[in-house]
Amino acid sequence: MTDETQTYSDGSLRHLLTLENLSADIVGEILDRAESFLSDNERKANKVPLLLGKSVFNLFFENSTRTRTTFEIAAKRLSADVVNLDISTSSQSKGESLLDMIDNLVAMQADIFVVRHSQSEAARTIAAHVPKGIHVINAGAGSHSHPTQGLLDAFTIRHFKGGFDGLKVVIIGDILHSRVARSQIHVLKSLGVAEIRVAGPKTLVPSSISTLGVKVYDDVDKAIDGVDVITTLRIQNERMEAALVPSAQDFYLEYGLTRERLALAGAKAIVMHPGPINRDVEIASEVADGPQSVILHQVTFGIAVRMAVMSLLVDSDGGDD
Amino acid sequence: MTDETQTYSDGSLRHLLTLENLSADIVGEILDRAESFLSDNERKANKVPLLLGKSVFNLFFENSTRTRTTFEIAAKRLSADVVNLDISTSSQSKGESLLDMIDNLVAMQADIFVVRHSQSEAARTIAAHVPKGIHVINAGAGSHSHPTQGLLDAFTIRHFKGGFDGLKVVIIGDILHSRVARSQIHVLKSLGVAEIRVAGPKTLVPSSISTLGVKVYDDVDKAIDGVDVITTLRIQNERMEAALVPSAQDFYLEYGLTRERLALAGAKAIVMHPGPINRDVEIASEVADGPQSVILHQVTFGIAVRMAVMSLLVDSDGGDD
Amino acid sequence: MTDETQTYSDGSLRHLLTLENLSADIVGEILDRAESFLSDNERKANKVPLLLGKSVFNLFFENSTRTRTTFEIAAKRLSADVVNLDISTSSQSKGESLLDMIDNLVAMQADIFVVRHSQSEAARTIAAHVPKGIHVINAGAGSHSHPTQGLLDAFTIRHFKGGFDGLKVVIIGDILHSRVARSQIHVLKSLGVAEIRVAGPKTLVPSSISTLGVKVYDDVDKAIDGVDVITTLRIQNERMEAALVPSAQDFYLEYGLTRERLALAGAKAIVMHPGPINRDVEIASEVADGPQSVILHQVTFGIAVRMAVMSLLVDSDGGDD
Repeated sequence: MTDETQTYSDGSLRHLLTLENLSADIVGEILDRAESFLSDNERKANKVPLLLGKSVFNLFFENSTRTRTTFEIAAKRLSADVVNLDISTSSQSKGESLLDMIDNLVAMQADIFVVRHSQSEAARTIAAHVPKGIHVINAGAGSHSHPTQGLLDAFTIRHFKGGFDGLKVVIIGDILHSRVARSQIHVLKSLGVAEIRVAGPKTLVPSSISTLGVKVYDDVDKAIDGVDVITTLRIQNERMEAALVPSAQDFYLEYGLTRERLALAGAKAIVMHPGPINRDVEIASEVADGPQSVILHQVTFGIAVRMAVMSLLVDSDGGDD
Repeated sequence: MTDETQTYSDGSLRHLLTLENLSADIVGEILDRAESFLSDNERKANKVPLLLGKSVFNLFFENSTRTRTTFEIAAKRLSADVVNLDISTSSQSKGESLLDMIDNLVAMQADIFVVRHSQSEAARTIAAHVPKGIHVINAGAGSHSHPTQGLLDAFTIRHFKGGFDGLKVVIIGDILHSRVARSQIHVLKSLGVAEIRVAGPKTLVPSSISTLGVKVYDDVDKAIDGVDVITTLRIQNERMEAALVPSAQDFYLEYGLTRERLALAGAKAIVMHPGPINRDVEIASEVADGPQSVILHQVTFGIAVRMAVMSLLVDSDGGDD
Repeated sequence: MTDETQTYSDGSLRHLLTLENLSADIVGEILDRAESFLSDNERKANKVPLLLGKSVFNLFFENSTRTRTTFEIAAKRLSADVVNLDISTSSQSKGESLLDMIDNLVAMQADIFVVRHSQSEAARTIAAHVPKGIHVINAGAGSHSHPTQGLLDAFTIRHFKGGFDGLKVVIIGDILHSRVARSQIHVLKSLGVAEIRVAGPKTLVPSSISTLGVKVYDDVDKAIDGVDVITTLRIQNERMEAALVPSAQDFYLEYGLTRERLALAGAKAIVMHPGPINRDVEIASEVADGPQSVILHQVTFGIAVRMAVMSLLVDSDGGDD
């Protein structure tokens, strides 16, 4: 089942909206391309002229400096011109409709829209509307999806574990509100990961999640036992305030990734987190800074993955429609 | 009558402050240059190195994301460095005078100032103050002038109608508060347009407008009859609130550009609007999206026209003073 | 006594945090390099590719459009990519710690951090934390230090006076709250300036200042007598409100640099000010605009000095650690 808004009829990528139903071939192409952007020392992506003369518009309908910065850096590494639009101060306030605004930005020569919006359908609505040759990247939508995060998670796992065959991974924490969890599950299923586990407070693990093909664990220790990859999710303060989790201290005791819990996974397991971390809430400070943590590598890889997505979309312009 | 602040003594352009008294020669030079920047498919302006090493400072004393973005894109297409200054948060708040601030920005190597200010004289004051080799572009001032809008309107008309000989154009709506109307009238007069008509509610059409050489119509249907070009102006909500126009619905009935009214102009007439549009207030949605609408072309041409103005100003540096 | 955070063990510069104990050799290297960036007409620094592919992150924890703009322009002149981060709207609001945020930005490929923070230790804390190859520039911290301002002051003096031998300089005004005064004193002492004087209201001249090797004057006329260089400092309105100085008019009468007072220094003395100026408060308008004022030259030289610091830091990457 292909996503007709997201891909051309020949299967090549036109927009990046969701990792649901994205083929393992396309994911692999993105990860390979991201690899090619990393410098020898893996600390940085080299500057390349692939998007010279192209314009990337960051359309952030909700504030996320961290995500916007990663896209801005990725676009500049590709030599694109970057325009940051704070939509709350733009013509939206003049009562212009979303699609009229998009039409105008297209006419202003936008090539790629990076869209962050609280409503999960906004990026798709824009993608369905823009003419051929214009590309939309979903940079996070409500609690639904955050595809470039899922891709960088996959890149990180492949980088450190060599592949996806026979892997066991666990995601711990606020599964309910996490676009990160959802996106990681979609991409890892597509890549054939054998076993995906989730664990967290019952109030934060929707029972429907098992329909995605993951195993739900009540006991976080059992969930961690023997896995190769652990992703801990950020607990928002709002959850504590809404009494969905008891308190930061209690959460840490029951679900926090301590050194003791990490030992259950073994010394070769890697620890991931989408950031920003709450030290000693969802993850022990010593684990976040420890030798098994690849959290900061995820950030660096995220630049390369975003470069890969942008350059792949532009390359796909040859595809039929 | 030449404008001694705006032009060098040899008549070449030093600043772009107003279209009043700007010669048809200079306007034609700008339009020709803009044409040269459009790519073959007319969707985009190509990236050129004409302003490489130059710095364009966007000085926006009032917020206008749309206009700022068009200048930012135009400057980046010319390979200039762009600095966006939000003046409300700058040293203005430290009680620095406008001209002291300008002196400092000139010392910071500004080459071009793009100035948006509620007071029509601000751009001229800055232009009269800066040393030779520094250029000022008025990016809209109160209800008085918006010269790059007038130029892009002229470009659009020339593009679609082939020239200005014997043309009949009409501008409909809030003439009183519109810098767009004023700028379009100035440039079209200069280019020899035979007949310029204006129509709108009496509260929004100043009687003095006829001194600019335009015909005032009470009846919008008669105003539209037989014209080649129709510009509809945005009605601000503030006008409704101030009871200058009855209501959005009533305005649409009396002055809105419906398909029926457009038919009075004939099938070859083009429909323009400075944006953002109020659908079904000053213009019917089906007309805005219809085959005679060139509204989005205006936006694209606006990038090319702004590139043309910036590059022409810098080229004029050889002019005597 | 070397600053182990600021310099490598071979003495080359790793970060620019303070001018205290910065060697005359390094200062001279920065000033020479800044000279090389100035164009022949001295109005501008040429665009050079020295930082092509590098990323400069402006981290402004307190608002200073003027200072941020000078660093932004300097970085763009060096062909760096520039990312401006308004920290109040960033993940700081998500409760992320300062150093976690820095770790993330390093992982996002920052090469240089330009840090403005109300607390003087913030830039040093970041500098002590980042890995080798990442550089921190203090862009002003509380009332303590503003090293690039001190360097541009030194550059300006050397430019107009030919050197520092036997020079007499005076700094007038709010010495107590001025990072400018402190930084200028540090760098001029290091460069061997023979006589540094300070003068101002007793409430604004800390008695401890004499430990820096400067002479404190009660009588501003005596302080000015026979000097080669006069720096007037901005009086903040807050000082008036806090009754630390009587009123703008009274301050001008007692300490303002009038033409009469300037005459005491002689016709060859130069007048400096860090900007923005309060006309007819700390400096007479006619003096600020007069032939002895080099205030706007300071701004232009500031771009070249900041380019020099950034490029020197990156060049130092070969240094051992």
